[in-house]
Amino acid sequence: MNAPFGDRLAEAVARSGSSLVVGLDPDLPRLPRSILRDPRDAEDRELAAAAILAFNSQVLEEVAPFACAVKPQVAFYEQLGPHGVDCYEQTIALAHEYGLLVIGDIKRGDIGSTASAYANAHLGSDADDAKADAVTVNPYLGTDSMSPFLSAVKEHQAGLFVLVRTSNPSAGELQDLPLRDSRLVHEAVADLVNQWGAGSIGASGYSSVGAVVGATAPERLASLRARLPHAWFLLPGVGAQGATAHDTAAAFDARGLGAVVNSSRAILYAYTERSDPDWSRHIRDAARRTRDELRSAVLKSTP
Amino acid sequence: MNAPFGDRLAEAVARSGSSLVVGLDPDLPRLPRSILRDPRDAEDRELAAAAILAFNSQVLEEVAPFACAVKPQVAFYEQLGPHGVDCYEQTIALAHEYGLLVIGDIKRGDIGSTASAYANAHLGSDADDAKADAVTVNPYLGTDSMSPFLSAVKEHQAGLFVLVRTSNPSAGELQDLPLRDSRLVHEAVADLVNQWGAGSIGASGYSSVGAVVGATAPERLASLRARLPHAWFLLPGVGAQGATAHDTAAAFDARGLGAVVNSSRAILYAYTERSDPDWSRHIRDAARRTRDELRSAVLKSTP
Repeated sequence: MNAPFGDRLAEAVARSGSSLVVGLDPDLPRLPRSILRDPRDAEDRELAAAAILAFNSQVLEEVAPFACAVKPQVAFYEQLGPHGVDCYEQTIALAHEYGLLVIGDIKRGDIGSTASAYANAHLGSDADDAKADAVTVNPYLGTDSMSPFLSAVKEHQAGLFVLVRTSNPSAGELQDLPLRDSRLVHEAVADLVNQWGAGSIGASGYSSVGAVVGATAPERLASLRARLPHAWFLLPGVGAQGATAHDTAAAFDARGLGAVVNSSRAILYAYTERSDPDWSRHIRDAARRTRDELRSAVLKSTP
Repeated sequence: MNAPFGDRLAEAVARSGSSLVVGLDPDLPRLPRSILRDPRDAEDRELAAAAILAFNSQVLEEVAPFACAVKPQVAFYEQLGPHGVDCYEQTIALAHEYGLLVIGDIKRGDIGSTASAYANAHLGSDADDAKADAVTVNPYLGTDSMSPFLSAVKEHQAGLFVLVRTSNPSAGELQDLPLRDSRLVHEAVADLVNQWGAGSIGASGYSSVGAVVGATAPERLASLRARLPHAWFLLPGVGAQGATAHDTAAAFDARGLGAVVNSSRAILYAYTERSDPDWSRHIRDAARRTRDELRSAVLKSTP
């Protein structure tokens, strides 16, 4: 029997000494030439999926020593149809072989039987190595869109990261609207996250229901940290989206727990030329460097 | 060159004389015995996907004369992995052979390159019969999560249905929160839908950017109708979710346009026994009856 996800994540961070989550967002035109000779080949979905699996396999080998988890973004696989979904599942299984936790970035949100089908599709049973350990979910439909996922939290020790305040430029259009009761919309979502996570707070002090919070606004990070004392934060926005490791400091607790930080493109495409024979070394170096930068951010957060 | 989606939907409603959208939410344990002898066979994902395709194929034949569109719910296919995605694509291509529009119920919402990947996965080019004509999308991430879908609206005459006010019991937790400016959260989303649709208003008077609005609260339907004069409404909640055809009247304009109504389980499982040899006739009768009920609702809406 596995421990609850909140505790498994704490354990993964401690064991790896890293808060880094590497995003696996494979972008065909940027794959190394040695993996995909001609990007036009990628019009064949089977060939494209095979190239991505070969790339991911090498990426996993390079980043595994420096990361606590990986986060495949399912859209990049979904666009390749059935072959892409197969590649997605194989990538998850491979990551598990390296001892990495897997956060499926699916951002699903639907109701009743549909939400059950999604939970079943993406979290399944703990015996299934091709399912993610946790997924991202969208809160717009409220509690009954969460229920089947919360069942998976209980039954399969799965984890959730609820979109609270995202890192994209137009995130505030809806998420930052002020409510009559003086909260912002995303603060109301944070309060729901507290409810949804109340039943799964583990020995680490963290629950299995976390929050996606953009690292692009450090002051907001601090206030959400106070609002959500038991939620793991998954912070996107570091690297290609402009935030720095330093910006994440407010999300960590004094033990260096409470937050994991995603970086995708800045690591995956750390090589600048498709033809660079040393592309995989650049990926490894970028993962190590990002882990180290996050370590200093954590140290700064400690009073 | 296709017409814009808003006009194509008006044309489909006029041609079929029906506002009915049949939801294709295949639930394995409920499939007829003649299609799936033993539901335990469904643990083999390939077998399960083949059974669903056989079921959908018969359903499409039965409902095509009485519907303007079908709405496959992708979660039910996704849970069967690669075989399920293949079945999803084949179902869409089959529906097109019957002249039905296809609304992919995907409820995706993500940012930048990820949103592009989803738009590419689900809308693609108009030459591709296995892609949906329109999809449902989640607005929580704001305008830049819509941009790639809005490009597909322009380039492929695709359609969107943005979740505005859903029909599930806990929808109001977030969607009905009152804002400081006196709107409700879902009204703020409706105002965004007006912006997103402004560029695609066709000859029918309707844009290609519609709204998902639950039929479970008729008074809210009327006020959203006034707020969104150019948006097609996709109304879930009729049938198994408790709303009646009569409840939808306020969503239609005087021409009987402006709304399409989804019914899934009440039609798909109109037969009560898996062993009923006449199961497909019950599906046909339920589709015809629902079309007729919607016709009288439309008549009642006309002053």
